[in-house]
Amino acid sequence: MTESEIRSCMKKALENVRNTTPLAPSITNTVTINFVANAQLAAGGSAACVYLADEGKALAQASKSIYINMGTQFPFYAASIRTTAKQAHECGNKWVLDPVAIGIGKLRTRLLKQMKNYKPQIIRANASEAIALANLWKLSDAVSNVKGVDSFDSTESAVPSAKALASFTGGAVSVSGKEDIVTDGTVAVKCSGGSRFMPMVTGAGCSLGGVHSVFACVAEPFIASLAATCLYNITGKRAEEKSTGPGDFQVNFLNELYRATPEDLFNAEIEII
Amino acid sequence: MTESEIRSCMKKALENVRNTTPLAPSITNTVTINFVANAQLAAGGSAACVYLADEGKALAQASKSIYINMGTQFPFYAASIRTTAKQAHECGNKWVLDPVAIGIGKLRTRLLKQMKNYKPQIIRANASEAIALANLWKLSDAVSNVKGVDSFDSTESAVPSAKALASFTGGAVSVSGKEDIVTDGTVAVKCSGGSRFMPMVTGAGCSLGGVHSVFACVAEPFIASLAATCLYNITGKRAEEKSTGPGDFQVNFLNELYRATPEDLFNAEIEII
Amino acid sequence: MTESEIRSCMKKALENVRNTTPLAPSITNTVTINFVANAQLAAGGSAACVYLADEGKALAQASKSIYINMGTQFPFYAASIRTTAKQAHECGNKWVLDPVAIGIGKLRTRLLKQMKNYKPQIIRANASEAIALANLWKLSDAVSNVKGVDSFDSTESAVPSAKALASFTGGAVSVSGKEDIVTDGTVAVKCSGGSRFMPMVTGAGCSLGGVHSVFACVAEPFIASLAATCLYNITGKRAEEKSTGPGDFQVNFLNELYRATPEDLFNAEIEII
Repeated sequence: MTESEIRSCMKKALENVRNTTPLAPSITNTVTINFVANAQLAAGGSAACVYLADEGKALAQASKSIYINMGTQFPFYAASIRTTAKQAHECGNKWVLDPVAIGIGKLRTRLLKQMKNYKPQIIRANASEAIALANLWKLSDAVSNVKGVDSFDSTESAVPSAKALASFTGGAVSVSGKEDIVTDGTVAVKCSGGSRFMPMVTGAGCSLGGVHSVFACVAEPFIASLAATCLYNITGKRAEEKSTGPGDFQVNFLNELYRATPEDLFNAEIEII
Repeated sequence: MTESEIRSCMKKALENVRNTTPLAPSITNTVTINFVANAQLAAGGSAACVYLADEGKALAQASKSIYINMGTQFPFYAASIRTTAKQAHECGNKWVLDPVAIGIGKLRTRLLKQMKNYKPQIIRANASEAIALANLWKLSDAVSNVKGVDSFDSTESAVPSAKALASFTGGAVSVSGKEDIVTDGTVAVKCSGGSRFMPMVTGAGCSLGGVHSVFACVAEPFIASLAATCLYNITGKRAEEKSTGPGDFQVNFLNELYRATPEDLFNAEIEII
Repeated sequence: MTESEIRSCMKKALENVRNTTPLAPSITNTVTINFVANAQLAAGGSAACVYLADEGKALAQASKSIYINMGTQFPFYAASIRTTAKQAHECGNKWVLDPVAIGIGKLRTRLLKQMKNYKPQIIRANASEAIALANLWKLSDAVSNVKGVDSFDSTESAVPSAKALASFTGGAVSVSGKEDIVTDGTVAVKCSGGSRFMPMVTGAGCSLGGVHSVFACVAEPFIASLAATCLYNITGKRAEEKSTGPGDFQVNFLNELYRATPEDLFNAEIEII
């Protein structure tokens, strides 16, 4: 795809979201669950959060894309997360994986290993998480500096791991950081914008994963991932201009997510690298 | 009751809330739990959220009304929700049911069937949920178009189901939508106002259920339900006038909930139908 | 310590927070978990919320302070909370206890009794909770008027209980109310400021507990507790000046938390009593 084709596809994706209000259900963490749902609504989608295996299975079958964020592990998520990912995989629907907090706790590690079998069409992660996931799946020898839920690796250092993950899944991988990189395993696109306030708002990354899933309902993985990433960069930049701190930044962020236009995505700050 | 008497009772209900800060505990979903509690506080009540059966039992006994929202199902809620509803029913306290996500998952369906035994004095639902609940309880043959957590039926089409539910419980049913309808099984009142931003904020319905429960601590079910519904319509309308998107709408909504006066409820946009 | 030394230490503590972005993980309740994390970030720390025993154990070992808030009790928290507190205690790291909702439910009561063994270096509570905890731990005969999650005792009436708790743990106790009191068991300091909107925002207390833990990563318990308490008083006062209701108060609160300076803490409204 040429850069111009990419731009057109992103524009079309947001048009489709706004015209169809796609339902993009989630299993996600309790810290940022409200922000995830509100971001999905503001972007133009519909949200529903579930917890149990049969709920996840039903929605993985009924929805074109489901979002699984690993941030909260309840004991019964061993079944919920596995069943949901398996169902999406088997019935040919998409799912988006956010491997947040990779490395903390046995259950999360066990589940993240299992997720390799169900090939998420989109993986959204920070740099440290992308490196750690590629390592866990034995697709790379690189070792991450993950600490808690924050990244201590540069986005650029995660590109080989991201490409390895995307090549394996046949989908897309989006690495968030000061600059973001989206890859389908071959092409990598650098996305600029965003805001210095984003790391000061819990759930900036989680909600971006949820918005990835909204786009995945109406577009193929690489475009969905790129459109979501660019939308966040545009929105973050505009929200910061109106904000004096992390409090009003959150408010302005949801407003700008709602206001951003398909044309804005056509004009996004991207660079094929 | 005449329309004028209804208005006076709604006014009196908000005065009582503001003067007594009633504690209206909840078992509610993790997506919107923060917004539910903040809305209850802004309206003039006090909030406490519980999770386990003995906690729910204690608060159902100690509080004049408890709110049970079905949006989150954890495995142990099988006991928590049943025990709490049963306790409220048996000791003559009120409880408010929000059957959100009806139709998704076995546990929710099983619990919602059981809830028929404990006759919630107030049911708050969107149109699709009200139709589905009346069907589940075999009070109506109408079939809903529920999808995820959104409604795909008109409020008016849900009136027969709402009346059937209210007649069965002997309480009130409130159906939320572009226009809202509150019924005690005989009389139905249409409430106007609200905002186009309300469906773009997750928890507008859940928090309305929580505010129903605050009013139920100080008023009988029909007036409590009507007062809460009118308060939301007034608040939504005023908040929209000050808002540019779903981000500041949420902020303005809590402000206006706090600022609304008993006199505002006296002058609410209602119509007996 | 003289008052002047206390002021210098508080100033230094906030400088250290801002320079090191300490990770202060939590096990906390689902109602206010988002506000806790956002407040920790706005104050200058980093947040991570966990749920399972092995996650809590890992983070209690890796972090200089961990926050345990009793507001949500899931059945598996019996192990998570005990294991986490035990680990922090045994490896000499700090932990902060918020005994919210003390008296409701058997599991919370059982866990709160166990917590006595693991001596939290900081206890943050409202007056009723502090009195109830000292009673539960048999350090005092005073009886609290706790109701739901709200306090019905004056801050001053809780001073003897707070001193008894701090003497027992060898750490600090912070009692929040219209005026706040922080004690190390011997000295007690009264902190003024805050806002009438704080009780109208769910999680004002919980998030203060989380910010205590951020400071506990870089300062000894008494100074950490005092710095967090003063920071909230300053922030609340400034946020109220810019706010018209509890909605924008929350937004302004996070902004002001982010903007407050070490110098502000040096000039905090404190009085040794």
